[in-house]
Amino acid sequence: MPRTDIARRVYNHAWKLDPIVRSLLDTDFYKLLMLQMIWGMYPKVDVTFSLINRTSSVRIAEEIDEQELREQLDHARTLRFTKKEMIWLGGNTFYGHKQIFEPEFLAWLEDFQLPEYELSKRDGQYELEFHGPWMYTTLWEIPALAIINELRSRAAMKPFGPFALDVLYARAKAKLWAKTERLRRLPDLNISDFGTRRRHSFLWQRWCVEALKEGIGAAFTGTSNVLLAMDTDLEALGTNAHELPMVLAALTDTVEELKQSPYQVLQDWQRYYGGNLLIVLPDAFGTTAFLRDAPDWVAKWTGFRPDSAPPVEAGEKIMAWWREKGVDPRKKLLIFSDGLEVDTIEEAHRHFHGKVRMAFGWGTNLTNDFEGCAPKEVKGLNAISLVCKVTKVNSRNAVKLSDNPAKATGDRKTIERYLQIFGEKDRVEHLVKV
Amino acid sequence: MPRTDIARRVYNHAWKLDPIVRSLLDTDFYKLLMLQMIWGMYPKVDVTFSLINRTSSVRIAEEIDEQELREQLDHARTLRFTKKEMIWLGGNTFYGHKQIFEPEFLAWLEDFQLPEYELSKRDGQYELEFHGPWMYTTLWEIPALAIINELRSRAAMKPFGPFALDVLYARAKAKLWAKTERLRRLPDLNISDFGTRRRHSFLWQRWCVEALKEGIGAAFTGTSNVLLAMDTDLEALGTNAHELPMVLAALTDTVEELKQSPYQVLQDWQRYYGGNLLIVLPDAFGTTAFLRDAPDWVAKWTGFRPDSAPPVEAGEKIMAWWREKGVDPRKKLLIFSDGLEVDTIEEAHRHFHGKVRMAFGWGTNLTNDFEGCAPKEVKGLNAISLVCKVTKVNSRNAVKLSDNPAKATGDRKTIERYLQIFGEKDRVEHLVKV
Repeated sequence: MPRTDIARRVYNHAWKLDPIVRSLLDTDFYKLLMLQMIWGMYPKVDVTFSLINRTSSVRIAEEIDEQELREQLDHARTLRFTKKEMIWLGGNTFYGHKQIFEPEFLAWLEDFQLPEYELSKRDGQYELEFHGPWMYTTLWEIPALAIINELRSRAAMKPFGPFALDVLYARAKAKLWAKTERLRRLPDLNISDFGTRRRHSFLWQRWCVEALKEGIGAAFTGTSNVLLAMDTDLEALGTNAHELPMVLAALTDTVEELKQSPYQVLQDWQRYYGGNLLIVLPDAFGTTAFLRDAPDWVAKWTGFRPDSAPPVEAGEKIMAWWREKGVDPRKKLLIFSDGLEVDTIEEAHRHFHGKVRMAFGWGTNLTNDFEGCAPKEVKGLNAISLVCKVTKVNSRNAVKLSDNPAKATGDRKTIERYLQIFGEKDRVEHLVKV
Repeated sequence: MPRTDIARRVYNHAWKLDPIVRSLLDTDFYKLLMLQMIWGMYPKVDVTFSLINRTSSVRIAEEIDEQELREQLDHARTLRFTKKEMIWLGGNTFYGHKQIFEPEFLAWLEDFQLPEYELSKRDGQYELEFHGPWMYTTLWEIPALAIINELRSRAAMKPFGPFALDVLYARAKAKLWAKTERLRRLPDLNISDFGTRRRHSFLWQRWCVEALKEGIGAAFTGTSNVLLAMDTDLEALGTNAHELPMVLAALTDTVEELKQSPYQVLQDWQRYYGGNLLIVLPDAFGTTAFLRDAPDWVAKWTGFRPDSAPPVEAGEKIMAWWREKGVDPRKKLLIFSDGLEVDTIEEAHRHFHGKVRMAFGWGTNLTNDFEGCAPKEVKGLNAISLVCKVTKVNSRNAVKLSDNPAKATGDRKTIERYLQIFGEKDRVEHLVKV
């Protein structure tokens, strides 16, 4: 038998583009949930998404080639939802519900295409923006981030020979497996993959997801990545993101409307979804402010996802609020998803086990932890805090305050104004690593 | 088990150079035999080798990228004979002889490096020249040709998708296998691979060699490719080339010396080699002239390799000459190697079987026949008649007349002068396809 498949080898060595994103389902599930609501209720709102590199010491535009970036973005724009994907979206059960997506929405989605982008370089960074109707620009967030992160990995690995690469992945696999061994010891653990946007690469994310599936069994409840959920028969997980309160806040005209906008988001949401999808994301303009002004009915929602304060502190604050509202936290759900690592998962689990239902959405440290794995340490393999955020709504500035001032985004003056309205209480700066 | 070896995939998609020539042994065996003689007897002769594309309708410089060509040539210059290769050259038995290479020659070879090259473009063709001591420039011929031919293949296959490539190679394999089935029917066949310089690619040549080994068994007597001979435990085959009479002719000062130079080559050669290596290559300045003026002792040599006239015609002429000299052709050997294909092999075999010993050196149509194999026909996959010939010796022009005027090379005036001296009798133009 011949030792080499010549055709495969010629193909491998001659191709022009190795597409990073090959399906519009290669995105977070919550983007589709939000999209249905945006399409249904806010089809005329224009929203700009902008790339923001919070790890400004890393000069991305010097790491990755502009032409390669454009080719990847252009390729993503050629994608459409395929027939198989449409049938799966329409026929699959999500969060226990059949037909979570309306037929009219799916009919519209069939023709969906990612809109144009604007790309330039400034001071070692890429300025990447997506302008246009919210219901189009919103779907750029995840592929844009996944593309840039994988291009960084590729650039970092370019000098590596085959053995260096073999060792790199061998170590990364061993490292992840050691994490699963620690996680396996936690009783009643519920953990899922939230690592699409920050992943090292698509294939690596797939490996991580499949390894968790084998490594921790039923404790691994699913993935936010729709494509991987479809391909590996896992649950597609995710609820909603900061872009909802950010956009709805920017659309308000009065201070009173602005203060009510975080609850308007919840009212909109429950027109579309119920059950385990009724998860409050309280920190867009500060969790303390959110809880202080929240109507009682918010306590009836299934749970909260504190996303920018340390889990124990944020969880205790929400549980206290539930108790205040006469609700038993043991019937409620907290979803932790902010920069998790096995240490913080263990700590939160130890603290909350038996006191509240818990779930973990594990992102960057699941799908992009190569620290100490490369035979020669290269900076480009370290994950960075790269986000793609709403910055404009129609012609107004959109901002996020967050519980951690280091995670605030947007125009400084608008932030000041929002701070005056929502208050600054309990906002504490924490280092944002990823 | 994971579906993809991520490390291998990353490596495959990121590499910068896929070297075509990876060993100095990836050359024709006769180059090393000639090199030992050149090193021993003509170490001070400067010889220029020049690329000549006889298929001038194919504009190579428009097919392949200059930068890629330079990178491949530069890579070839980084090669040295490895320890394993040196031990094999010193320890292997060639043509039944141990230690065919002198220890002093091998010691010199250890430090061998391909010399510099000169590359430019003119009228859609590359002008590629190697200047310097003959004992260095001579080893460029085969790798230079193999590099250009494989770069042509690669360029031609660039637009092909994985299935087109799979089909291409599937058809080429089926085509070659059908040839082996025809060859298997010829009794007492002796055939070997002479296809290094014109090969589609190294891996394809290896496939062809291994397929012939399995397909026709003992009738496949070996390969001219030293690396493949070493790696696949085949005989390394080959004797000598036109460059010997061409250079020795150019070194002469008088007409009489010039007329004697083809026999001087043979005298030099037999100082080094005997037995089956005593093969006359008679056509450098015309076979008719060679035989007319040949001393009687030439008839004692083992055989002839007619290289530019149709096999039957050339063989009959040489056999008539042997009989004239009182020699029984049935004890003699004819080696055919000019543009062979299964048809011409069958025809020569039918004609000469039982009358003379025969061997076939099968080149281009063995290792580079992709006609009709590509799902979309592309010109770049058709082999062309590309050679790398001696054009200057010290400061004089070197030429070859050949039995076929279409295969003559060199300066026109010098060709005229040689034709006057050697005569034009029996030179007949034939189409040179490869």
